[in-house]
Amino acid sequence: MYNKINASDIQALKKIVGSDCCLCGSEINIDYSHDELGGIEKMPEALVRVHSTEEISAVMKHAWERNIPVTVRGSGTGLVGAAVPVCGGILLETTKMNKILELDRDNFTVTVQPGVLLMELAAFAEENDFLYPPDPGEKSATIGGNISTNAGGMRAVKYGVTRDYVRSLTVVLPNGKIETFGGKVAKNSSGYSLKDLIIGSEGTLAIICEAVLKLVPLPQVSLSLLVPFADMKSAIEAVPQIFRSKITPTAIEYMSRDTILFSESYLGKQFPDTKNDAYILLTFDGSSVSQVEEDVKKVADLCLEIGAIDVYIVDTEERKKSVWSARGAFLEAIKASTTEMDECDVVVPVNKVDEFIKYTHQLADRLGVRIPSFGHAGDGNLHVYICRDSLCDEEWETKLKQCFDLMYEKAEELGGLVSGEHGIGFAKKSYLRKQYGDTPMELMKGIKSVFDSKNILNPEKIC
Amino acid sequence: MYNKINASDIQALKKIVGSDCCLCGSEINIDYSHDELGGIEKMPEALVRVHSTEEISAVMKHAWERNIPVTVRGSGTGLVGAAVPVCGGILLETTKMNKILELDRDNFTVTVQPGVLLMELAAFAEENDFLYPPDPGEKSATIGGNISTNAGGMRAVKYGVTRDYVRSLTVVLPNGKIETFGGKVAKNSSGYSLKDLIIGSEGTLAIICEAVLKLVPLPQVSLSLLVPFADMKSAIEAVPQIFRSKITPTAIEYMSRDTILFSESYLGKQFPDTKNDAYILLTFDGSSVSQVEEDVKKVADLCLEIGAIDVYIVDTEERKKSVWSARGAFLEAIKASTTEMDECDVVVPVNKVDEFIKYTHQLADRLGVRIPSFGHAGDGNLHVYICRDSLCDEEWETKLKQCFDLMYEKAEELGGLVSGEHGIGFAKKSYLRKQYGDTPMELMKGIKSVFDSKNILNPEKIC
Repeated sequence: MYNKINASDIQALKKIVGSDCCLCGSEINIDYSHDELGGIEKMPEALVRVHSTEEISAVMKHAWERNIPVTVRGSGTGLVGAAVPVCGGILLETTKMNKILELDRDNFTVTVQPGVLLMELAAFAEENDFLYPPDPGEKSATIGGNISTNAGGMRAVKYGVTRDYVRSLTVVLPNGKIETFGGKVAKNSSGYSLKDLIIGSEGTLAIICEAVLKLVPLPQVSLSLLVPFADMKSAIEAVPQIFRSKITPTAIEYMSRDTILFSESYLGKQFPDTKNDAYILLTFDGSSVSQVEEDVKKVADLCLEIGAIDVYIVDTEERKKSVWSARGAFLEAIKASTTEMDECDVVVPVNKVDEFIKYTHQLADRLGVRIPSFGHAGDGNLHVYICRDSLCDEEWETKLKQCFDLMYEKAEELGGLVSGEHGIGFAKKSYLRKQYGDTPMELMKGIKSVFDSKNILNPEKIC
Repeated sequence: MYNKINASDIQALKKIVGSDCCLCGSEINIDYSHDELGGIEKMPEALVRVHSTEEISAVMKHAWERNIPVTVRGSGTGLVGAAVPVCGGILLETTKMNKILELDRDNFTVTVQPGVLLMELAAFAEENDFLYPPDPGEKSATIGGNISTNAGGMRAVKYGVTRDYVRSLTVVLPNGKIETFGGKVAKNSSGYSLKDLIIGSEGTLAIICEAVLKLVPLPQVSLSLLVPFADMKSAIEAVPQIFRSKITPTAIEYMSRDTILFSESYLGKQFPDTKNDAYILLTFDGSSVSQVEEDVKKVADLCLEIGAIDVYIVDTEERKKSVWSARGAFLEAIKASTTEMDECDVVVPVNKVDEFIKYTHQLADRLGVRIPSFGHAGDGNLHVYICRDSLCDEEWETKLKQCFDLMYEKAEELGGLVSGEHGIGFAKKSYLRKQYGDTPMELMKGIKSVFDSKNILNPEKIC
């Protein structure tokens, strides 16, 4: 169906991006065949490192003409195989397009290339007294990847998700045309929101070449509160009660003793408290010290009232570091605790988090697999890991499938969705189809073919 | 191309919605032939008042089968002809679907039918100690209409627009199928955002039957500040400087002396101050009196520093009423001041507002037409009115076209877009095409035909 890349294609691509930026065959590192989670693997026929919108356009024109599939990759931190070139062809890497192009202090926007890393953008904003609120755990992801998955992160409770911060996108369409959707404006009712269609489309509709992102003033104060509870049920049940107090924390994370212990042993660093079964970690920010302190105090008192065992204010630099480095290492720590794992990134209504976690515990007991989890108690987005440990191939496959089937079913029953922030990619396609049914999938396929009638851009993903 | 409605269609429709809710011919009030602005006029062949999602589905199945165009109408407060049945057929009115179905205090959501009025929703939220932030001037618009235009309103500066508050939509597709897009969740990366495609699509892709909307805690304090300046330039130039102070007001409106005088005479009520040429009106809200008062004081001092003539704190009930009732009456007051008018709802980057307003003044002088304006200085969305006054038919047509052409061109030059919140509908189609060019319009048309291959839902709108 697609053409294989031949010598003359390589020559053409080298002409576009320079000889040293178009690799093929054994020149390509094996890491380019998979993403962070692994499992889905395929080597590209050519790896092309682009430097500009014009280069992307030229590559796409060539690929369109020649009917060669193209998959875009940022830093490869995805967890659902979205950046794996499952049909071969060109893997187009954006990491060299890593410039911050403009800071507009009047319009509170920053204009970036897609290969800028989240941590670079966060640091740049902060240096300039601004905050870029979306805050996914993986700080070395590219902003292009964040937009492509509508990444959320911890601060979504107060600040929302990536979608809420994208003002405009300049993209290259599969046929090579360059278009800009949206503008440096705060309101827009000018036709269908093509910008919002690209956000979260995991590189299947167009290639993001430039983004104008909204910033907010940097909060002057930020405080965290670590609250231990006797069990997960009490910890999670505290969350809706905190919301009912009308104080909006920046983030509310939950973590179990197990996960913290993995992280301690992975990092070789101590966590402030590991005596208790379950914890919630809250952050508060704002422009006034007194206001933030007042909020923290109110929530601390409320937590104690409803059964928290203690409250630790995370205010010293040392304590901040120990808590947040542990939180940041959860994924890696769980990964290191087992032989192989797969993940489920469901999102459920905030007041159903408890029920969902309880269900994963029951499932773990019933199937005899370990299912640690952590995540965003404040926005209902859970990261649940199914660990292989010592299971043999056959057992692993059977139990993994059972776990996924049952967990996605449960999420749906609770009014949740398949993915909160990691996306569908290649790995979760069947679950998306199962949840949505035929009609929405047909609409998505229809939209895909409006943008990409030859189906050359990241084929076999989402729908 | 479409079938005309015949006696057996009427019989079928009456069977679906009840005899008294399906009107035809002279039974239909002439008001149903146009929206708030008028100018675009066409009577529907049948007016159908629906009561439920199932009725909408049944009406659409019938229309789909019989190839009859259907246009959805809320309370008809639109300004671009989006709810005018320009191809005849069925006008489907949603005002009887006006129930607030659920308030979910744990998830901070409210579930509504599309015919609930914005003012009803606002009051309901407030009674329950919540705020529904989107705040367009037209409070008697339906929430279905607000979603269909991605309405913004005054509080967009701090709170964003309607899109930011829609968690999920239950819709009927043109073929009658019922689907739900999104969920009662805070994050979502589960395939293309069909929900975001429906928002702002002006009733061309699907009919909104139910919406889950996000609420925020009701701010405990709200204060306004009325700031007179010697001229519009100084007034508007203050806005980016206020933003640079890192204080985020809830709203920043601008108004000229002329507009205020129209409003005074229209309402027969006095405005606190009419001595000066230009004013900005700022609102601040928050949970703590001391914090809001501190912000107000800082901004008041800053305004005086950069040339404001005075600052009036709008704190008494009486003053609040006089200021906000004037602001609310601007559109009606300008309408009453002339024989006929048309409007331009451009949005430009916030720091280009001054340049755009200056341009409209030059244009008014050059073409000899009156062009009053008011709008949202804080988010760049301007409402500019071209007044016919005593112009004859020919002059009016020529000058109106010239004005529009030049204003949209200027907006584009400044990085703006055709519509900030009123939409494209029928009236602004040519300007949208001019700004976007062929490719985005072809993408929109392609998407339209994925949802509605027979083109029966609100044909001739947007693209």
